[in-house]
Amino acid sequence: MIAVLKPNVSEDQKKHLIDWLSAQNIDVHVSEGHEYTVLGLIGDTSRLDMDLIASLDIVDSVKRVAEAFKQCSRKFHPDDSIIDVGDVKIGGGNFAMIAGPCSVETHDQIIEVAKAVKASGATLLRGGAFKPRTSPYDFQGLKADGIELLLEAKKATGMPIVTEIMNASHLPLFEEVDVIQVGARNMQNFELLKELGRTNKTILLKRGLANTLKELLMSAEYIMAGGNSNIILCERGIRTFETYTRNTLDLSAVPMLHELTHLPVVIDPSHATGQSRLVEPMAAAAAACGADGLMIEVHNDPMNALCDGAQSLTPAQFDAVAKKVMKIRACLGE
Amino acid sequence: MIAVLKPNVSEDQKKHLIDWLSAQNIDVHVSEGHEYTVLGLIGDTSRLDMDLIASLDIVDSVKRVAEAFKQCSRKFHPDDSIIDVGDVKIGGGNFAMIAGPCSVETHDQIIEVAKAVKASGATLLRGGAFKPRTSPYDFQGLKADGIELLLEAKKATGMPIVTEIMNASHLPLFEEVDVIQVGARNMQNFELLKELGRTNKTILLKRGLANTLKELLMSAEYIMAGGNSNIILCERGIRTFETYTRNTLDLSAVPMLHELTHLPVVIDPSHATGQSRLVEPMAAAAAACGADGLMIEVHNDPMNALCDGAQSLTPAQFDAVAKKVMKIRACLGE
Amino acid sequence: MIAVLKPNVSEDQKKHLIDWLSAQNIDVHVSEGHEYTVLGLIGDTSRLDMDLIASLDIVDSVKRVAEAFKQCSRKFHPDDSIIDVGDVKIGGGNFAMIAGPCSVETHDQIIEVAKAVKASGATLLRGGAFKPRTSPYDFQGLKADGIELLLEAKKATGMPIVTEIMNASHLPLFEEVDVIQVGARNMQNFELLKELGRTNKTILLKRGLANTLKELLMSAEYIMAGGNSNIILCERGIRTFETYTRNTLDLSAVPMLHELTHLPVVIDPSHATGQSRLVEPMAAAAAACGADGLMIEVHNDPMNALCDGAQSLTPAQFDAVAKKVMKIRACLGE
Amino acid sequence: MIAVLKPNVSEDQKKHLIDWLSAQNIDVHVSEGHEYTVLGLIGDTSRLDMDLIASLDIVDSVKRVAEAFKQCSRKFHPDDSIIDVGDVKIGGGNFAMIAGPCSVETHDQIIEVAKAVKASGATLLRGGAFKPRTSPYDFQGLKADGIELLLEAKKATGMPIVTEIMNASHLPLFEEVDVIQVGARNMQNFELLKELGRTNKTILLKRGLANTLKELLMSAEYIMAGGNSNIILCERGIRTFETYTRNTLDLSAVPMLHELTHLPVVIDPSHATGQSRLVEPMAAAAAACGADGLMIEVHNDPMNALCDGAQSLTPAQFDAVAKKVMKIRACLGE
Repeated sequence: MIAVLKPNVSEDQKKHLIDWLSAQNIDVHVSEGHEYTVLGLIGDTSRLDMDLIASLDIVDSVKRVAEAFKQCSRKFHPDDSIIDVGDVKIGGGNFAMIAGPCSVETHDQIIEVAKAVKASGATLLRGGAFKPRTSPYDFQGLKADGIELLLEAKKATGMPIVTEIMNASHLPLFEEVDVIQVGARNMQNFELLKELGRTNKTILLKRGLANTLKELLMSAEYIMAGGNSNIILCERGIRTFETYTRNTLDLSAVPMLHELTHLPVVIDPSHATGQSRLVEPMAAAAAACGADGLMIEVHNDPMNALCDGAQSLTPAQFDAVAKKVMKIRACLGE
Repeated sequence: MIAVLKPNVSEDQKKHLIDWLSAQNIDVHVSEGHEYTVLGLIGDTSRLDMDLIASLDIVDSVKRVAEAFKQCSRKFHPDDSIIDVGDVKIGGGNFAMIAGPCSVETHDQIIEVAKAVKASGATLLRGGAFKPRTSPYDFQGLKADGIELLLEAKKATGMPIVTEIMNASHLPLFEEVDVIQVGARNMQNFELLKELGRTNKTILLKRGLANTLKELLMSAEYIMAGGNSNIILCERGIRTFETYTRNTLDLSAVPMLHELTHLPVVIDPSHATGQSRLVEPMAAAAAACGADGLMIEVHNDPMNALCDGAQSLTPAQFDAVAKKVMKIRACLGE
Repeated sequence: MIAVLKPNVSEDQKKHLIDWLSAQNIDVHVSEGHEYTVLGLIGDTSRLDMDLIASLDIVDSVKRVAEAFKQCSRKFHPDDSIIDVGDVKIGGGNFAMIAGPCSVETHDQIIEVAKAVKASGATLLRGGAFKPRTSPYDFQGLKADGIELLLEAKKATGMPIVTEIMNASHLPLFEEVDVIQVGARNMQNFELLKELGRTNKTILLKRGLANTLKELLMSAEYIMAGGNSNIILCERGIRTFETYTRNTLDLSAVPMLHELTHLPVVIDPSHATGQSRLVEPMAAAAAACGADGLMIEVHNDPMNALCDGAQSLTPAQFDAVAKKVMKIRACLGE
Repeated sequence: MIAVLKPNVSEDQKKHLIDWLSAQNIDVHVSEGHEYTVLGLIGDTSRLDMDLIASLDIVDSVKRVAEAFKQCSRKFHPDDSIIDVGDVKIGGGNFAMIAGPCSVETHDQIIEVAKAVKASGATLLRGGAFKPRTSPYDFQGLKADGIELLLEAKKATGMPIVTEIMNASHLPLFEEVDVIQVGARNMQNFELLKELGRTNKTILLKRGLANTLKELLMSAEYIMAGGNSNIILCERGIRTFETYTRNTLDLSAVPMLHELTHLPVVIDPSHATGQSRLVEPMAAAAAACGADGLMIEVHNDPMNALCDGAQSLTPAQFDAVAKKVMKIRACLGE
């Protein structure tokens, strides 16, 4: 950490701060410039309150040099992580096509959608059993029964399944689930992240609606700090002032995250835009900028979906999207 | 709900939609205008997917008439709710002055701060035992021991205590806690809200960093739907593009929420601004625009606080803030 | 426009409002529902203050049915507009590759860059002569001399030129300029837009940092209302809370604008991200989601550029980007 | 400026950068830490492209030490600036109450409103003659005739007048105008700011909808760099995701700006909230947190206002607001 002192700071004031830092086991390397003094702070600065030091009368500003995330940083792991989910690989050139309905509704629905998306090239099946809804009066998912139905679809098609967890106490129900999703609203539910860090499940971690990439990586770090490195990051749109789309899909997160971390990054264009018409162009764009996968809502009957029908593709529409995405990946030689 | 159809929709298309709505148990009242047709949808429209209907080819736009929140709406409860916490009342003209350290650290610290803030007029003592931190490597709070220390401070001063919960499984530890705080990051942790709805504890519900007032009210509705109406809302700054302040304090939330709901609204200027120098002017502003209380961080030794020292006031600074706030309230006759 | 009245509005209150509307030459079509009354407002509602009506005690909410933009709406012009700039066509399947330095600096610089980008496939040359800078102490561009140098580059290469205007009084200097750019900060400089509406120049209109797509279209409407339909829209990143990138590139604006308007849409990945490393992936993504062109900063010596060197590509890097973009367009059959 | 180099940078690379900086007339003070090297850059760093240096392979990050604004900084002018407008003083404890209609409409309207607000304690009269409207089809103001009417009201009441300019070419019309307003959309219309810097008029500079406080100060710096220091800053709400209010009033801008600059800061609660019901609480809050004035829309007949009726107070409502604000200022001893 570096602290820049204001001009005209007295030697006494400077000494007082350096003594206080020493008491925190921080060594200080002083560099006197013409107008300002720079203190290099050496030691375990992760426990120092950067804002506190910045707020001191004699301090102009403070800057962290080391990044706050470590295990998920590409600096500590230069190669792409490749995540194994059953026979499916994700990252390092392996593209994940995750598709399925927002909510699992019936046996026939999930089997029909699963077979259709598999035929179009999907490699993982998604479906919501526990649903986070803004209103307590909205459909909250089939819960344990939903997971049962997903497992039946897995048996019928051989596809690994992805489904969301909302409460660590539900973990026993997820024993046969292949990828556990942490939704945007729970990205900073640190208690849940800690519990997932103690499992060896693959975690699909969605970026929160108003969370920075740094915060997303810090949440991944929570899981890794617990010993679990099987993490897939997912960008699903951030909250901005624009109202034509539900959220604003931040595609520059793909190359930016690839620079910062070795973890794979998938894109969810369905939730990001909230409109099925925009899924195809945004899926194509995601493939073109190097995403490691896509997560797309598909429903056999969007008009009668219990949840998020407006953003669901029909199986035929998904087939067209999948074809376009594969074409782009082939042409880019990826 | 109202659906506006596009011009030139055929009778067949119109009939098809009305039939589909009828199948969902929705009555439709058709009003033909010169250029457009308006459908009034009557029945339990809360289960209809508004976005789906809006996405239909023949529909121009859709609008909810009824608000999604019910129990917390002022329409259903015109008088201010007054929340009782021990001998302290909050709302309906009763002002809550909640003060204390970000984190509980030691017996002496919490007792010293508690006595000091009580002497300055604080009516509730706050202190963090479980701390949500962005980094897994930061201090996570004293946990159960922190609650023990708070209870000692309660015993020593008679002040009811406010502390944050991060996991429903910790509820047994909160049995003697007077007010359970739900932090900004957990505002849409619906599983936690449901559990709290089953208790009769007073809940201090903080607005999420990027959550609308409507979403805040829907989260309050989750707690009320479970049977618990003892809720205090808290605005603590929202995320914007401005970087001089940590967040942007949205004070217009005070009169706006007073219009929408009967629940009391308190302001946390410490977290909103992240800078102790801004706490006094923002606390004064909150009192002037009708807030039902304040929640302010106070530490006996901000330089050595384990958490958020930059935004903590010393007891002497808090005393000045409290005096100014009382002066404003007195002059406004509140 | 539709106004929804609150339940329990008296006949007198209703009559009072209808009379007031009639006095504004608005016919009212009343539709009584079970709980609410819907007023259909017919006539020239564009002069009605929607917020005012919404603020009336008896009104629940108000909704515009007709869009506020007309001439730029796809409803009024279903086919793509194709803009002619010299021999270059833009829109309707014609892709514009606009490249060049942020600022024009010297004769040699602009000629060298122009020849290089032309060789790589650029169809228009961009270069700043008048530069909007946040600080009055920053380099403000070569002004009239910069335009002279651009015209020399045009002569040397045959490429039409694009350059920014900041003041309508400079218009005489732009007589031989092919495309006049309106920068993000001037998107709502309505006086400038009106002046440009009186010319027959092609206008490249950049979306403001915090402007909605609707506002962008209303600004295009200002130019069209004056009689000039030669408009190219440009998305160049919006302001959000994320700090790793300078702005957040909103690529869903491409398909969304294509739905709303017939005007072509180009993407500026250089300003959006502020980092040259992110230009290639974002340019590829823009091509994949159907953008009608790209606007990319290229400098022969980014280290010594007088402006925005951090986001400029070298000619060799631009060549790689152009090749990738053409590959994607070819594979998509566009 | 300080540049932090990455670990493991070679001596050659370091020398290459230092040589390049020297060529830009920048002296470099090297400070070697244990893991990183800090370069202190001394000289006129305002012309260096900070982003460019930050983007170099060997650079970890860059930080400006000196602020980019100078003349408007409190560091260079520790005392509050007091702006004289006729007999009225603003700043340094002098409170400006600016009131009047959004648009000037008729002689009777402006005279009636002017007399009413003066009777309630207003010290300056505002009224729009040139109106920036999102739609070209909306009422654009009475223009020159509007200024004439304002001057009549000035004559009738003795109040100095405030009105908005949209085009530097209109300056001759503003000769007898006391305070020229620059609207939010023109805050970064640098050509206009430069022209106003050449006058000696008082400028009321409104913060842009999505502009940071730093950018607001840089725009003030544009005016001051031209020689005109008669500037009043105005916060009028920023664009956020919240939709219940039109914008989000950022009241912490008041104490924050007071720390950064010596210029007075007034608050416009009418535009910030867009709703007349919220003007009184927000005006009270602004007074409580130390604003140097208020700017409030008042119309004798809001129902028939040609512009922004929804946010206008009646004269009676304004009287109540003014009384409350004076009460708060009296009680705070200001």
